[in-house]
Amino acid sequence: MSTFKDINQVFALIESELTETESAFSRYLGSDIDLIPKIGEHIILSGGKRLRPALLILTCGMLGGNRKTGTLLAAVIEFIHTATLLHDDVVDEADMRRGLAAANTIWGNEASVLVGDFLFAMAFDIAVDQGSMATLKSISTATRRLAEGEILELMKTADVSTTEADYLKIIDGKTAILMATACEVGAITAGAENSINKQMKEFGQCLGIAFQMIDDILDYNSCEENLGKTIGIDLEEGKVTLPLIHTLQHALPEEKEKVKEIITADYVSRQDFDFVHGLMKKYKSLEHTTAEAEKHLKRAHIILNQLPDSQEKEALHFITDYVLSRDR
Amino acid sequence: MSTFKDINQVFALIESELTETESAFSRYLGSDIDLIPKIGEHIILSGGKRLRPALLILTCGMLGGNRKTGTLLAAVIEFIHTATLLHDDVVDEADMRRGLAAANTIWGNEASVLVGDFLFAMAFDIAVDQGSMATLKSISTATRRLAEGEILELMKTADVSTTEADYLKIIDGKTAILMATACEVGAITAGAENSINKQMKEFGQCLGIAFQMIDDILDYNSCEENLGKTIGIDLEEGKVTLPLIHTLQHALPEEKEKVKEIITADYVSRQDFDFVHGLMKKYKSLEHTTAEAEKHLKRAHIILNQLPDSQEKEALHFITDYVLSRDR
Repeated sequence: MSTFKDINQVFALIESELTETESAFSRYLGSDIDLIPKIGEHIILSGGKRLRPALLILTCGMLGGNRKTGTLLAAVIEFIHTATLLHDDVVDEADMRRGLAAANTIWGNEASVLVGDFLFAMAFDIAVDQGSMATLKSISTATRRLAEGEILELMKTADVSTTEADYLKIIDGKTAILMATACEVGAITAGAENSINKQMKEFGQCLGIAFQMIDDILDYNSCEENLGKTIGIDLEEGKVTLPLIHTLQHALPEEKEKVKEIITADYVSRQDFDFVHGLMKKYKSLEHTTAEAEKHLKRAHIILNQLPDSQEKEALHFITDYVLSRDR
Repeated sequence: MSTFKDINQVFALIESELTETESAFSRYLGSDIDLIPKIGEHIILSGGKRLRPALLILTCGMLGGNRKTGTLLAAVIEFIHTATLLHDDVVDEADMRRGLAAANTIWGNEASVLVGDFLFAMAFDIAVDQGSMATLKSISTATRRLAEGEILELMKTADVSTTEADYLKIIDGKTAILMATACEVGAITAGAENSINKQMKEFGQCLGIAFQMIDDILDYNSCEENLGKTIGIDLEEGKVTLPLIHTLQHALPEEKEKVKEIITADYVSRQDFDFVHGLMKKYKSLEHTTAEAEKHLKRAHIILNQLPDSQEKEALHFITDYVLSRDR
């Protein structure tokens, strides 16, 4: 039976390490160029989940490393994540982020682009000071693949011929690779063997793929209040995610035609959304997506099971289950 | 007397190295994600001056290194430069770049942001494969300071209280630091002593500051045809550069008020431009800016004079003079 009953207990286990990571955020965002701490703190201190820092620190601890040695590299991963959020909001023309006004709506797209660039650059600058060539390689490759995933997503916008393979490539880049790198860097920092580093990279990747699949389900199933963003935003932005791909695979020609019209339109009405949501219920597309996520999470548990027992390992098992059960 | 009569002869000296750098561009831009080679090649193969790669390769050769060892790091510096151009055009809402339509006007801001991110990430990825910790530190710090310079410039947009010190900080970041790093990395690659690396960094910085000052003069003095961009774009974008700062320092209160109105307006007419240009003539602000640029170039020559003679050194002297004499 798990030691943990609640995700907050997982974060409590590594509270002192996460506090160090948080104080690194403030320290590295400090600049006499006002806009940097203003925008940086708006987005980074507005209470993200710190899932990626937690993955890095827990992996490091699980594999016998001193968890404290991972706190700055955890900040590096979160800086990269935050930079992509700033740039995503420009790309998506988002109005909301984490329940707050998106930075671009307050300070303009220009500022979001440049402060995002600053965060990327600062991340590399800290990584060079902290890391080894192995961690740098993991981080630089992840950042490149992150950009590739985002570009592929942009290219596939409103494209109803998007395949499951396209989708997997997109979410691998935009979400999974950074979680994979968080775990890999945690393992490297612990001084683990190369084979263990690779296993933990795969663990993070499985977790990330499932995480994004659940995110894509929540986009259709959640409401504004508890997701901190507008309902059905993916449909409005023309993002063809797994629930929609599955629906399109099973839809009748006239249904498919209607979905195509909706996803290419500038504006998606509540009625349009309900129509698509109705099709997803009809074809059990959200259940299919959940089942796909479960496959990846099962693989994540299997990888963990091969590693020596520890509190951190229990915590990572808990996170793996949490990815499926979370409602926001 | 210089061996070189023409900037093209300088580039001819390192033709085979620059060809290797060019082929690296195509190789690393190759991707099955179409937009990457499309946008990447549009901007990077549209014929920039390759000044930064040349600085790196020439410095490496001058200090006894094999020039070929610098070709991939030269590509890294040019990728970073190109990434900033893509993001700048989004920030400036530019229509033209190097005489061609700016990428954002063809593929949209979203694509320019993300392909810029890809180029940054790819640059670091190549640098990690190629470089030492010393080159990585130089590159990551430069990229961070580049972002800082751009953010400060954004904050100072249309701000008539911008000081010469603000201006120097902005151009140091947005232009000089990357040229400084090109030279420093060239020296590191040649295996030079630390003191020489620092001297060459200062050389590149002097060159870069003068380069940007001349650019800011050309913006007021050049015409659309030979600069490949619209005349007086800085005024329209509210960029308070040294010529304008100098004019504002000397202008009568009513002149200052009129300039303030013009620079904060959404649209700058030909008449407005001519008014500001007229003040610059009256107060000899372009001459003042040229004199400031000359000071930095003089320092650049002095640094070079302390180093052993070579063809590459002659070439760097020629480039130093060229920065002042170029008309585009």
